[in-house]
Amino acid sequence: MADDVKKTSNKLAEMGEDVIKTLEKEGNPSIDIPLRTLSNVVFDKKTKQLMLGDKSAKRYFFNVAHSKKFMQTMMVGGFCKSLLDEGIHASIRDMYYNLKRTLADSNENTFDEQGESDPLIVDLEVALDTLREHLHLTTDRKGIVAGDVIIEDRGDEINWGKLGSGGWSIPSTVDEITFKSVKAEFVLVVEKNAGFERLHEDKFWQKFKCILIGTGGQPSRGTRLLIQRLNSEYKLPVYVFADSDSYGFYIYSVIKSGSISLAHVSDRIATPEARFIGLTVSDIYNYDLKKAIIKTREVDIKRAKELLQYEWFNKNPRWVKELNLMIEKGVKAEIEALSHRGLKFMSEEYLPDKLRKKDFID
Amino acid sequence: MADDVKKTSNKLAEMGEDVIKTLEKEGNPSIDIPLRTLSNVVFDKKTKQLMLGDKSAKRYFFNVAHSKKFMQTMMVGGFCKSLLDEGIHASIRDMYYNLKRTLADSNENTFDEQGESDPLIVDLEVALDTLREHLHLTTDRKGIVAGDVIIEDRGDEINWGKLGSGGWSIPSTVDEITFKSVKAEFVLVVEKNAGFERLHEDKFWQKFKCILIGTGGQPSRGTRLLIQRLNSEYKLPVYVFADSDSYGFYIYSVIKSGSISLAHVSDRIATPEARFIGLTVSDIYNYDLKKAIIKTREVDIKRAKELLQYEWFNKNPRWVKELNLMIEKGVKAEIEALSHRGLKFMSEEYLPDKLRKKDFID
Repeated sequence: MADDVKKTSNKLAEMGEDVIKTLEKEGNPSIDIPLRTLSNVVFDKKTKQLMLGDKSAKRYFFNVAHSKKFMQTMMVGGFCKSLLDEGIHASIRDMYYNLKRTLADSNENTFDEQGESDPLIVDLEVALDTLREHLHLTTDRKGIVAGDVIIEDRGDEINWGKLGSGGWSIPSTVDEITFKSVKAEFVLVVEKNAGFERLHEDKFWQKFKCILIGTGGQPSRGTRLLIQRLNSEYKLPVYVFADSDSYGFYIYSVIKSGSISLAHVSDRIATPEARFIGLTVSDIYNYDLKKAIIKTREVDIKRAKELLQYEWFNKNPRWVKELNLMIEKGVKAEIEALSHRGLKFMSEEYLPDKLRKKDFID
Repeated sequence: MADDVKKTSNKLAEMGEDVIKTLEKEGNPSIDIPLRTLSNVVFDKKTKQLMLGDKSAKRYFFNVAHSKKFMQTMMVGGFCKSLLDEGIHASIRDMYYNLKRTLADSNENTFDEQGESDPLIVDLEVALDTLREHLHLTTDRKGIVAGDVIIEDRGDEINWGKLGSGGWSIPSTVDEITFKSVKAEFVLVVEKNAGFERLHEDKFWQKFKCILIGTGGQPSRGTRLLIQRLNSEYKLPVYVFADSDSYGFYIYSVIKSGSISLAHVSDRIATPEARFIGLTVSDIYNYDLKKAIIKTREVDIKRAKELLQYEWFNKNPRWVKELNLMIEKGVKAEIEALSHRGLKFMSEEYLPDKLRKKDFID
C-alpha cells in the first residue's frame, strides 16, 4: 500500500477508534467538522485563495438531531477505508447504492437518497484534512491534455504527445500518476474543447513548447489538480484562455483561487500563480473582433457587477477596467470569435502576440 | 489529399459549378434537399434503421423566400471546401463566426445567429450524401475507449491498452484513424463514465478480451461512428450496457437504429447488430437489486409507453415484456445499482453471467 493511501486509511481508522474509546468510557462520541457556510469562507490575501475560516461544529452520537447523520458519517468513513484497503475506487453514486440498506427490525433505511451521502464526503474531507480523491472516491472525468510529457499511470507509460487527435482523457484521480519527463515552458488551459481541437490540430503545443489542456467548461477536480501539480512540481507558468464573459472570467478565478463550495481544498487544487491570457474585452477592440461579439444580457451585467465585488477581482485595476468595459459597451465574445479573422488566427497571430507582449492579467 | 477528402471536395465544387452554369444560361439555380421532417422518417425493416423517405424540396436562387438561405448554403459549402483543401477542421461555431459579416453597402448580415448556419450543414450532408465529418466540421468530443487495439492517428501509433487510468479520448472525427491491430472478441458500450471507470479498474476488457467504450450519456457522433467501424470492419459483436430506464433503452436504440434527427446518416453511424446486455427490468429481480431501485415518475411511464409505440421496440416480445414490467412495477434502476451487491459485482458476476447465458435483447 502506498504511503499516502496508508496515511488516509489510518486517519479513518483513528476516527473510528476514537468513537469506540469514547463509548467504552460511556462518553458521547463526536466529530468536529469545520463549517462550510458562506460566512466561514474567506479570501486569504497572502495565498490568494478562498479558504475556510475557523468556525466549526461538533456532530454528536447521542443527540437525537445528530445521531442518524453521525451513523451515516461513520458508514461513509468505513466504506472509504475498505476502498483504500482493497486498492479500488468508486463513484459517489456507487457508494450510495452500496451503503443503502434497511436497518434490521425496522423500516428505516441507512440512506434514502444520494443527497444524504454526498455532503458527508465533504465533511470527511474537511474533518480529516484530506481530499476526496485520497478517499478513493472518483469524480466525473472531464478534460483532455496534449504535450511533450511522458507519464506513468497504472503501470503504463503514456506520451501525451503521441495520442493523435484524441489526446489523453484526464482521469478523476491524477495524484497517482508519475511524471517521467516534462518538456514544456508553460501550460495553456483552454476553456473550450473546440479551442483545444483547433490549437491541437495547428500543433500549437509543439511550436510553442507548452502543455495544452482543454477543460470543456468549468474544469473538473481532476483537471484542476493536474494544473496545480504541473505548476507546483515543475514551476510551469499557467495561462488560462477563456471566453470574454463573466463565466469565462469566473472559470479563470476558480482555477486560480478556488471556489466557495470547495474552499476547504483550495490549497490542494487551486493554482494562485495562474494568469489570464484572454480573451479580454479590450481584445475585442484590439484584434478587430467587433463583428463577432455577442450583446450582453441582463444576467451577464449582473454577474459582472458581482465579480467587481470580489476582492480577487477588484484589487486589480486591469480586471476593474475589463469588467467596466463589458458593462459600459454591453459586449462579450467567445474564443471562437477569433475564427472571424481566419481559422488559424488564434494559433498563429492572437496567442503568439499575447505571449510575446506578456499581456496577461493576474 | 486523401481520396475521400478529394471526393467530398469535388462534390462541393460540382454543386457550385452547377449553380454558375445555370446562371450563365440565365436559368434559376436550385439545390435539391431531402426533407428531414418527422413525416419523412421511416423505419426500414430490412436494415433495421431509421431512414429518410423519398420526399424532398428544392431551394431556388431566384425566389425571395429562398434566396438568402440559398446564398447561406453556398457560403457554408464554400467554407467546407476550403477546410478540405487546406486539410484543417473547424467547429460549427468557428464556421458561424468565420462566415458572419455585413454585406457591402447594406446593413444586412450574412448570418445573424448560429441557429441559421447549423441546419445548413445537415442540408449539405443530405444533399451531397456525405457526413458532416467528411466536410471537416467537428462535433463535440465525448466518449473514452480502452482495449487491446493499436491505431494510427495523425501519424501517432496509439495503443488503447496502454493509457493507464485515462483511456483514449474519442475525437470528433474517427474516420481518419487506421486500425493496426484489433485483438478483441466483442465491444462493450457502457452508458456511463462511472461504469467505464469501474470496469476499466477491474481490468474487465483484459479478462474478457473486449473493447470497452464509455459514452458518458447519449453517445457523440464520433463514438457512434467508432462503434459502427468496429462492428462492420472487424465483425465484432456490440453489447450495450445502459440504465434500466426509458433513457437507457433509448440510448441503446440510437446506437442500434439511429435517431429521428439524424435519420439521414443512419446507414453510416448506426449499428443494427448491436444488442442490449442490460440492465433490464427483469435483472432487478433476477440479481436481487430491489433495494437499489428508483421509483418511476410520470415522465418515465409516459416515455416507456412511447417506446412501446416504436416498431423497433414493439416487434420484440422481450422489449414489450421489459417495458410493461417497468410500467406495472413502477421501478427503474441505474447500472450503479449493481454496487449494492458489492463494487466488483458488475465486473465479476453480473456481466460474466449475462455473457455466459447470452442474455441479450435485440
